[in-house]
Amino acid sequence: MNFLEEKILADGIIKSGNILKVDNFLNHQIDIDIMRQIAYEFKRRFRGKTVTKILTIEASGIAIATMLADLYDVPVVFAKKGETANCTDDKYVSQAYSFTHERMNNVFVSKPYLNEGEKVLIVDDFLADGQAMLAMIDIVKQAGAEVVGLGVAIEKGQQKGGATLRAAGYHLESIAIIDSMDADAQTVKFR
Amino acid sequence: MNFLEEKILADGIIKSGNILKVDNFLNHQIDIDIMRQIAYEFKRRFRGKTVTKILTIEASGIAIATMLADLYDVPVVFAKKGETANCTDDKYVSQAYSFTHERMNNVFVSKPYLNEGEKVLIVDDFLADGQAMLAMIDIVKQAGAEVVGLGVAIEKGQQKGGATLRAAGYHLESIAIIDSMDADAQTVKFR
Repeated sequence: MNFLEEKILADGIIKSGNILKVDNFLNHQIDIDIMRQIAYEFKRRFRGKTVTKILTIEASGIAIATMLADLYDVPVVFAKKGETANCTDDKYVSQAYSFTHERMNNVFVSKPYLNEGEKVLIVDDFLADGQAMLAMIDIVKQAGAEVVGLGVAIEKGQQKGGATLRAAGYHLESIAIIDSMDADAQTVKFR
Repeated sequence: MNFLEEKILADGIIKSGNILKVDNFLNHQIDIDIMRQIAYEFKRRFRGKTVTKILTIEASGIAIATMLADLYDVPVVFAKKGETANCTDDKYVSQAYSFTHERMNNVFVSKPYLNEGEKVLIVDDFLADGQAMLAMIDIVKQAGAEVVGLGVAIEKGQQKGGATLRAAGYHLESIAIIDSMDADAQTVKFR
């Protein structure tokens, strides 16, 4: 069992409806040791790849992206969500359905911050149906940049995001992949 | 002139209406060298203070808070904004007016992540009227924790936030304080 799987078992809370709460170390309170270790693990798994920029999406991806950017010594860009449709000429815009908020979100990056030829490593805290990840990939392509890899802390393996992205040929690295959870027993089965 | 003032002059864009855009290094694209230097500068300015937690607010405070937490080796908590009024019994909630979005935002932190007796350093990228900072201070007080200091990257010195917080006795450290800006000449006067 790796460090993140252990942490999920120790501090994650499984709720009915296939919900895993990890907001005491990943997406509300941030355990800096875990962040550091996630960053080093991504660096190891993407060894040999040239990375010129880290892309993530607000808000909980930012801590992981920042720690990783510190290792690569490259800039982070975080995609923003929400109201921007009134002024899109200077932005790359895509859409992602938010299951949390039950609505489509605009996802956008200002054009100067993603450029043709850049080698972009996309990271996020969670991968479920892959909506946010697909929106970020779309934005990188709009910019004429290259997706060199996708790094995810926790993948919900029962949902379709991981399978979709691997089938499309992306180099996806998920540090913990959850195959099943049991809210009554508070148990998690990892792949 | 310090490193952040230099960076603002080099890469900031002044727009009419007293707006400073720094989204190419601080709050959309993140210059990791600047983040590192901001973190070391806060560590230096708050030397001698015991800090057990870093508190910030999503989204653009997270990168600064993460780099600083890495130096202090303590957890980060980022306050969240938005819809939560339907379920507040497990959260500390305060309000902040957003001038950007022209509305009141709820600002909240889940109760387990701020505790009585903790020594909290609050950081943010911008300080203008101090709405977000005052909401975070309110939340720390609700938790019975102690505000040991306030660290801000860029303070807009013409607005009332800094004066209010200093008059209230807080140890506020702003790395760059802007006294005036001229959009036509693209000049900034620092304090």
